[in-house]
Amino acid sequence: MRRSAGTLAVVGATGQVGTVMRQIIEERKVPFERLRFFASSRSAGSTINFGQQTIEVEDVDVADLEGIDYALFSIGASASRIYAPRFAAAGATVIDNSSAYRMDSEVPLVVPEVNPGDAARRPLGIIANPNCTTMIAMPPLAVIDRLFGLERVIVSTYQAASGAGKAGVVELDEQLRRPDLVRLTFDGAAVAFAPPQKFPATLAGNVIPLAGELRDGDTSEEEKFINESRKILGLKDLKVHATCVRVPVFTGHSIAVLAECRDQPRVERLVAELDQQPGCKVVGLPTPLACAGADAVLVGRIRRDRSSANGVAFFVAGDNLRKGAALNAIQILELLLD
Amino acid sequence: MRRSAGTLAVVGATGQVGTVMRQIIEERKVPFERLRFFASSRSAGSTINFGQQTIEVEDVDVADLEGIDYALFSIGASASRIYAPRFAAAGATVIDNSSAYRMDSEVPLVVPEVNPGDAARRPLGIIANPNCTTMIAMPPLAVIDRLFGLERVIVSTYQAASGAGKAGVVELDEQLRRPDLVRLTFDGAAVAFAPPQKFPATLAGNVIPLAGELRDGDTSEEEKFINESRKILGLKDLKVHATCVRVPVFTGHSIAVLAECRDQPRVERLVAELDQQPGCKVVGLPTPLACAGADAVLVGRIRRDRSSANGVAFFVAGDNLRKGAALNAIQILELLLD
Ligand SMILES: NC(=O)c1ccc[n+]([C@@H]2O[C@H](COP(=O)([O-])OP(=O)(O)OC[C@H]3O[C@@H](n4cnc5c(N)ncnc54)[C@H](OP(=O)(O)O)[C@@H]3O)[C@@H](O)[C@H]2O)c1
Ligand SMILES: NC(=O)c1ccc[n+]([C@@H]2O[C@H](COP(=O)([O-])OP(=O)(O)OC[C@H]3O[C@@H](n4cnc5c(N)ncnc54)[C@H](OP(=O)(O)O)[C@@H]3O)[C@@H](O)[C@H]2O)c1
Repeated sequence: MRRSAGTLAVVGATGQVGTVMRQIIEERKVPFERLRFFASSRSAGSTINFGQQTIEVEDVDVADLEGIDYALFSIGASASRIYAPRFAAAGATVIDNSSAYRMDSEVPLVVPEVNPGDAARRPLGIIANPNCTTMIAMPPLAVIDRLFGLERVIVSTYQAASGAGKAGVVELDEQLRRPDLVRLTFDGAAVAFAPPQKFPATLAGNVIPLAGELRDGDTSEEEKFINESRKILGLKDLKVHATCVRVPVFTGHSIAVLAECRDQPRVERLVAELDQQPGCKVVGLPTPLACAGADAVLVGRIRRDRSSANGVAFFVAGDNLRKGAALNAIQILELLLD
Repeated sequence: MRRSAGTLAVVGATGQVGTVMRQIIEERKVPFERLRFFASSRSAGSTINFGQQTIEVEDVDVADLEGIDYALFSIGASASRIYAPRFAAAGATVIDNSSAYRMDSEVPLVVPEVNPGDAARRPLGIIANPNCTTMIAMPPLAVIDRLFGLERVIVSTYQAASGAGKAGVVELDEQLRRPDLVRLTFDGAAVAFAPPQKFPATLAGNVIPLAGELRDGDTSEEEKFINESRKILGLKDLKVHATCVRVPVFTGHSIAVLAECRDQPRVERLVAELDQQPGCKVVGLPTPLACAGADAVLVGRIRRDRSSANGVAFFVAGDNLRKGAALNAIQILELLLD
């Protein structure tokens, strides 16, 4: 029997991830006594239906935080840095979707299928949810590590607009509504798009090899992939190279992965084990459209690397709003309630 | 002084690549005495304007091939296998854009900035133009090989619809005209697309990790990248791993490349040399929209690989219809006329 979550808060309930969290709480029948929704002062006072109830959105900045048992946060890193400690101080266990606490040594970074035990030690009362791109690669990479000993990972990503929040989706949608878009066929300059706001270049009909901010060669998004993978897999010396690229997809992050192992990987064994792994599904053609709305990450194109002795390659696609964010957070909550 | 091409044929003049060939012949003022256009019986009899002239399209299957000096072919592999030998037998030098002859040991496979000398020996009277994806990676990889000794290449591609011919462009365009496309945000299944014909899945709002036919683990497109790179760079033991992915872009192929070298690569030196390399341009953000209509391939995100001692990574985007096909073929022709 799963315990009740008592008073459960969804913080960022009006956002994309918050919306999917509300859906998943209903789908999975997460047990609670009371449900509270929070957002910024912009949305405070509006109401959201949940089952038979109508729940008013509260302003996270002024609300009374007494009596909250668990809080699922998806309001971005800078707001999480302000409000997550406030919720924790008032007694709530916070599961945070932002990058604010992921690399904090006092905060576990958890994928329930991979490192559930890490959730037990949480001195700050905060558990972090990985970056949505990192997350999607973790279930298959954990299997490869277990079977063959993971030594090096090389990834190129194909990241959806929704990974950059609602504003990214709106920007791509507006660009795609241009009837002259097809003229891009022969000359990109023929379509004059409005200057992009959210992304560093027009995303429609394009791919942008820059997600996050550029640091020293790598971007912040690439550094997240490197550092978070090491922490989740418990392989602090894992060698990782990442190239993070935004593509004109609404939802569903995909990743081309090359994994180099200590032992020679056997593809048949890997396929069989991936098929058994909770949260993974082996398919012929893993794509964002196929994974959107699904809980499992889809893994395919599994093959030996012809350029190294012990390499194995695969392609993985996962719903960045579900497994990449909302679902994983709720699976962490379920872990705490079991 | 460049010699005249005499009687110059464009075979596949009505196609995407043929159209760009006609533009480039005009732009670069390729010298010729007579220009002839060929296609299948479907287009034969139609006319195409070129400068002041109106030229009738001839049926390649029944036309008199006497007196043709050079023929630029872009009609696909199965048609090239039939007609390229006929043109060669009638005395023409054929520059073929298809995969039909690329790996034939009697046929040179040429990128003028990389291996111009190979064009001299052409016992069959045929010179092959590389696959459009391979092509775009060659200028920067040739520089890396020259500077640091290339040992291994790992690529993930982001390939445009136009790389699959006009039918691919039409299919993507029709899918993108769906006003309900944005609903993909939360659920891929919410938009019912017509079944795809040209691609193995819907391309709008999606990425498809399968280009060409699936062989033994790798696809035909991935094998082309592996085999053609070795032949063009003259490195028959080069280790190559490729994942070829179609993205919802009209024109411009992009590639995330990791190159492992014999010597430790120095990024500053590489950037300086790439900037000097004809056919390459170093930019901050190389994207398909930025490269569409341009001659050079755009190279950026150049950085040391943090996962190996001697690796260097970059991202490259090039116009698959220009440098990836029409322009390179015409540069080969110019080489023969110089
Ligand atoms: N999108 C993904 O794939 C993904 C994946 C993993 C993690 N995340 C994390 O989740 C966060 C939200 O992503 P999203 O896609 O849901 O973004 P979104 O659709 O733009 O929604 C943002 C949410 O945060 C709230 N918010 C923003 N600033 C706030 C503040 N200062 N105080 C209180 N609430 C504030 C917004 O409330 P209002 O309605 O009041 O504006 C809204 O509910 C991201 O910042 C990221 O850290 C996202
Ligand atoms: N697209 C690229 O990025 C790219 C890059 C490198 C190489 N290529 C090569 O170039 C070829 C053409 O590509 P594309 O994008 O221009 O394709 P496309 O737009 O579909 O055009 C195909 C052309 O080939 C002609 N053709 C087709 N079958 C023929 C036959 N049996 N006999 C004579 N002519 C025939 C067509 O003539 P009709 O008008 O009579 O149908 C048309 O001119 C490809 O097959 C590929 O081998 C393409």
